[in-house]
Amino acid sequence: MTKATVQGMDLRTLFEPRSIALIGATDKSPWSLNTYQNIKDSGFGGSVYLVNPTSPIVHGERTFDSIAGLPEVVDLIFVMVPTTVVLPTLRAAVECGVRSAVILTAGFGETGPAGQQMEDEIIDFARSSGLTVLGPNGNGFINAAENITPYGLPIGRPLIEGTVGFVLQSGALASSVLQFAQSRNVGVSFLTAMGNESLMSVTDVMNYLVDDPNTSVIALFLESVRDPVEFRRIALRALRAGKPIVALKIGRSVLGARAALAHTGALVGDNAVIDAAFEQMGVIRVRSLEDLITTAGLMASLGGGLPGPRIGVVTPSGGASEIIADRAEDEGLVLPGFSEETTVRLGEIVPAFATVQNPLDVTGYVVIDRTLMRRSLAVVAQDPNVDFAVLLSELPRVQAVDPSLTMTAYGESARNIRETAVPTVVLSTVLTDVTEYGRSVADATEFPHVVGGIEHGLTALGNAVRWSALRAAASATPEELDPFVAPVDFETEPTGIWTEYRSSELLSHNGIPVVPSSLVGSVEQAQERAAAYGYPVVLKAVADGLGHKSDIGGVRLDLRSADDVAEAYNSVLATLADAGATGAAALIQPQRPSNGLEMLVGVVRDPVWGLTLAVGLGGVWVEVLADAAIRVLPVSVADVRDAIESLRGIALLRGTRGSEPVDIDALATCVAEIGDFAYRLGDRLQALEINPLMVRGGECEALDALITWSETGSETEAVS
Amino acid sequence: MTKATVQGMDLRTLFEPRSIALIGATDKSPWSLNTYQNIKDSGFGGSVYLVNPTSPIVHGERTFDSIAGLPEVVDLIFVMVPTTVVLPTLRAAVECGVRSAVILTAGFGETGPAGQQMEDEIIDFARSSGLTVLGPNGNGFINAAENITPYGLPIGRPLIEGTVGFVLQSGALASSVLQFAQSRNVGVSFLTAMGNESLMSVTDVMNYLVDDPNTSVIALFLESVRDPVEFRRIALRALRAGKPIVALKIGRSVLGARAALAHTGALVGDNAVIDAAFEQMGVIRVRSLEDLITTAGLMASLGGGLPGPRIGVVTPSGGASEIIADRAEDEGLVLPGFSEETTVRLGEIVPAFATVQNPLDVTGYVVIDRTLMRRSLAVVAQDPNVDFAVLLSELPRVQAVDPSLTMTAYGESARNIRETAVPTVVLSTVLTDVTEYGRSVADATEFPHVVGGIEHGLTALGNAVRWSALRAAASATPEELDPFVAPVDFETEPTGIWTEYRSSELLSHNGIPVVPSSLVGSVEQAQERAAAYGYPVVLKAVADGLGHKSDIGGVRLDLRSADDVAEAYNSVLATLADAGATGAAALIQPQRPSNGLEMLVGVVRDPVWGLTLAVGLGGVWVEVLADAAIRVLPVSVADVRDAIESLRGIALLRGTRGSEPVDIDALATCVAEIGDFAYRLGDRLQALEINPLMVRGGECEALDALITWSETGSETEAVS
Repeated sequence: MTKATVQGMDLRTLFEPRSIALIGATDKSPWSLNTYQNIKDSGFGGSVYLVNPTSPIVHGERTFDSIAGLPEVVDLIFVMVPTTVVLPTLRAAVECGVRSAVILTAGFGETGPAGQQMEDEIIDFARSSGLTVLGPNGNGFINAAENITPYGLPIGRPLIEGTVGFVLQSGALASSVLQFAQSRNVGVSFLTAMGNESLMSVTDVMNYLVDDPNTSVIALFLESVRDPVEFRRIALRALRAGKPIVALKIGRSVLGARAALAHTGALVGDNAVIDAAFEQMGVIRVRSLEDLITTAGLMASLGGGLPGPRIGVVTPSGGASEIIADRAEDEGLVLPGFSEETTVRLGEIVPAFATVQNPLDVTGYVVIDRTLMRRSLAVVAQDPNVDFAVLLSELPRVQAVDPSLTMTAYGESARNIRETAVPTVVLSTVLTDVTEYGRSVADATEFPHVVGGIEHGLTALGNAVRWSALRAAASATPEELDPFVAPVDFETEPTGIWTEYRSSELLSHNGIPVVPSSLVGSVEQAQERAAAYGYPVVLKAVADGLGHKSDIGGVRLDLRSADDVAEAYNSVLATLADAGATGAAALIQPQRPSNGLEMLVGVVRDPVWGLTLAVGLGGVWVEVLADAAIRVLPVSVADVRDAIESLRGIALLRGTRGSEPVDIDALATCVAEIGDFAYRLGDRLQALEINPLMVRGGECEALDALITWSETGSETEAVS
Repeated sequence: MTKATVQGMDLRTLFEPRSIALIGATDKSPWSLNTYQNIKDSGFGGSVYLVNPTSPIVHGERTFDSIAGLPEVVDLIFVMVPTTVVLPTLRAAVECGVRSAVILTAGFGETGPAGQQMEDEIIDFARSSGLTVLGPNGNGFINAAENITPYGLPIGRPLIEGTVGFVLQSGALASSVLQFAQSRNVGVSFLTAMGNESLMSVTDVMNYLVDDPNTSVIALFLESVRDPVEFRRIALRALRAGKPIVALKIGRSVLGARAALAHTGALVGDNAVIDAAFEQMGVIRVRSLEDLITTAGLMASLGGGLPGPRIGVVTPSGGASEIIADRAEDEGLVLPGFSEETTVRLGEIVPAFATVQNPLDVTGYVVIDRTLMRRSLAVVAQDPNVDFAVLLSELPRVQAVDPSLTMTAYGESARNIRETAVPTVVLSTVLTDVTEYGRSVADATEFPHVVGGIEHGLTALGNAVRWSALRAAASATPEELDPFVAPVDFETEPTGIWTEYRSSELLSHNGIPVVPSSLVGSVEQAQERAAAYGYPVVLKAVADGLGHKSDIGGVRLDLRSADDVAEAYNSVLATLADAGATGAAALIQPQRPSNGLEMLVGVVRDPVWGLTLAVGLGGVWVEVLADAAIRVLPVSVADVRDAIESLRGIALLRGTRGSEPVDIDALATCVAEIGDFAYRLGDRLQALEINPLMVRGGECEALDALITWSETGSETEAVS
């Protein structure tokens, strides 16, 4: 499918039309009936025309026989005609001055080459004529905030208006999203399912929603990110604008779609790259539809993030308190002990046998004294150790015998919650629907949003706290990077595999610390360089296109004398000769003491997100721990430090059993410099592997390096 | 609180009474009102009496002024009188011949020592008089299957009858449990919140439910397991009876409540022990109330387990299919490719542009052809690669214009699902309530249970498959273990820390391979033993009560000559003398080659679950990987093998970078023998640590060992 974007297109005409024509409206199509009904039910204030050349009456209304016959130039045509008629329809519309179209019709690229051909023609026509097209094979859209719903599937009523904008790469899931949002009383500003994304893509709609004043949170269901550069640009724009993006990106189970170009590549699952990329651009990744909507609903209700991870919790249940404590730890949230003053004041409120602690269980005496919860909340929210408060409560499900008592109690509680010293989030115990009656009580008493259940609610709270931290960190603008410094022999376009000597030279010229190294062509040269470095030394095989030397026994360690060097040189060169290698030679390096820690730093090109940096423990740890931390380039030192601190093997770096701890700041700086260097190498770089990067205290030194360039051609490394 | 059980008590009189008296019934108490109303609403067929000495009319009924004044001896008294009146009430009841009581009244042990005193008096009286007591400070119980609901909190209606029995250690959560079960149309057979568990505990009710013909699944909310031996006995009885137990056990975040008695102790979090104990006894542990009830509801609907992990999935949505694929992998479920025949047959059903794969998306054409899903399901369920089928579908939420069409469609679908070749589970996309209308359609059409949403539904499926496997494995009866063989000097009751020599001797006498070792008291003895073993040797410090020798430099490796041994002996003995150690001596051992892999095997006594075995990688790996696998003793070789294979560092055992792989069966056998040995040591064993257990191919050998006995007294190790 052809990737396309519609930057510069006016999506306001498409998504906020004042007049709509349904082209191909017919009583025989459920889609036509749904679309017409949806527009009518929403109370759309503009004109709606039905176009059908053969039926004078459709859906009980008089039709028009052509677009040209309409009484005005409509802002939007909603196209439901047969597949082969779509293009002529668009031509007719453009001739009349129409600028926007939704194409519901299917049968295009999704059906095979013939359909793709028709889709390409539509794309070409739309591009050349400046027509904005959503679809084909989509459901249309729901602009709930503006009461405009040209949408081909039934919309479960009531459609609750709010500020969450949904963009989905799945038409069938849209109904489930709407259903769950309604059940949790999460209001929608906008929803669209993209269809084939022929002309408009997810990023175009995201871009629209970042500027849409009716939308405060953007929720995404993603199968694939088609334009990662644009996605990143918009995500960062949303982050700076304070509009959270929450995304359910599937494909967690699809491992290794791309080849592992280097050892590190094997550790870099696509999914880990997506995690890293999303986190770096402030996108909250969730793993279920429930979390998508629960998190989006919470963030919309907050109107911003949460000030920090420390929660004060008030509940009427010891059991619920314990579940909250477990879940808070899962999410990296903190339940600080209450201050002495809070403890004393709570002691005056709760029954004598209650235990005053965080989370607070005010006990079953709430059955007798219904003010226990709100009086306790007011005190907890004033505790200086608490960033925000959580109140375990919920809306009534059915009407009580005396509903006025309910209204009074919820009204008082709502007032109290609004007035707490820190933000208060209301959380229900389990995830059940907000009933119609519950919603009416919430509306009448202005009771705050109730987050759906401890399980998904705590995930949402964790997400909100993490997003707030990412947003705060996003203020730092990345620095411009200097172009890389080419070594003397870097004259032609690089291709293929650069073996250690040439790779190390390039690194060294660009300020990356590399172990000294001499290319030698004879035993005498080898011995002379070994003596100059001082024993022990290392000898390594060199040959055209030879990457991983140790696989052929091409690395000889711990050479302690001139004889050792001669033996190693002759043996390695004999092996190379046997293998028919060209450009055979050897490298001599001083041998470093073994008391350092071996790290592995790799950069590989992800087919979607571009160059990614992987950092992990080297040596045997690579295979055992299989834990590399991933970041998409470019990175800051702080990013790299976070990555290193997320390693399972971090205990080794902190110093284990008396070994010297590594200066993690210095290591992060060194790795970030390697990342910068790789990033500056640009489009031709396919992979860079430093294995090991020897780390000792605050010192780092690359002991081996390998660079792979794309478009491997006939050019190979010249041995000087 | 005093732990107590009521084994042998007749819980049927308590939970299935034919007559109930509410003692202390009053219009002023919401609990009295709720209890009375609940009993009436459930259609209880027996007699209900209200006892109140001062009000002649309560809840609109005539009261009795005493238990003695009742027209019959009731099966159950439900006690709501003030705290101080509870004991006299029980006395009066027992005098009249009453045998069962629920005590709702609070104010006992939970309020402090004075309350505990009153509670103890009640326990003593009940024990001595044979009265069965639930509570105090409980809510009562709901026997939904028998329409008996002496329960003090409001029951949301309808109370859906089914076969899940709930036992909760939290009264306040009971309402949330009932609410969620109702919302998901999960039927309840029985529910109780235990209160103070003075006389009856969770295990007593579990025991009742294992025999209760109305209950097929037992669901637990647990704060603590009071009687682990009884819990394990009942859990295994339930497993063999084919009644799944699902448990939400809180306290995942409470780490290390007990002291780390050995190095392994530090790795054995209580929570890991609970995970291990539950798995070993076939109890399904969940982490949320939603998962508790969703899993219980699924298992109740299955009437048994699931035949295997391979699912065939039929959906109307590509997006949902992708989410299911991700979640299936999380849960260890498998989505096999369809057979050629299935693929061909599905190709004849679904639209031409649909992709025939597992999970199957029949596409949005379900809007036109509503038979697509059920025809596809019939084919998928016949695929030989599939153990069971999943159909993504849901009950209608609101009544359609023509409800008869709905009934016909659901009726046909229900028939089709019943007739599939393998079991079929119906799963909704998101977790929303089954509405009243949806429930009526399900009841009318006998549509199967709809599991609530992909997220919790896949967890439930994974749980059901795992439980089925555990059940199958449970048929193997554990063998009886021989008593351990005491070494010659094992004459008195052991106490305190046994240092390496004595520990190793005991191990060795019981068939555990241990490196040879000689206790020496002079340089000459040391040199003589070293020569006998052959160089190099190891010398280790010995002193009374000296556990971890290396902490004081008491382990000297790589001694290659008589001089080395003399120097090491003198230096170690000098250190011991400086430290004022008594019983100072040294051990001489042959030094083993370093090409093996060091494992760590520890046994510690968990305060709840008793002796637990931890096995993990030794040496530096202990601190870096922090991954020990835990099992509660006794264990089988298969258990230990599973434990070893769950280690993060399993790659090291399988052979990394050319190193020799370990024979994991042989290792598991050796570790299981250590576990058996420790288990046979009995109640006095506090901890056993073998660190390292050197493993090389199929060989294992303990290179160091330490045993700690409880009741450390004056007796210390004698040096012979």
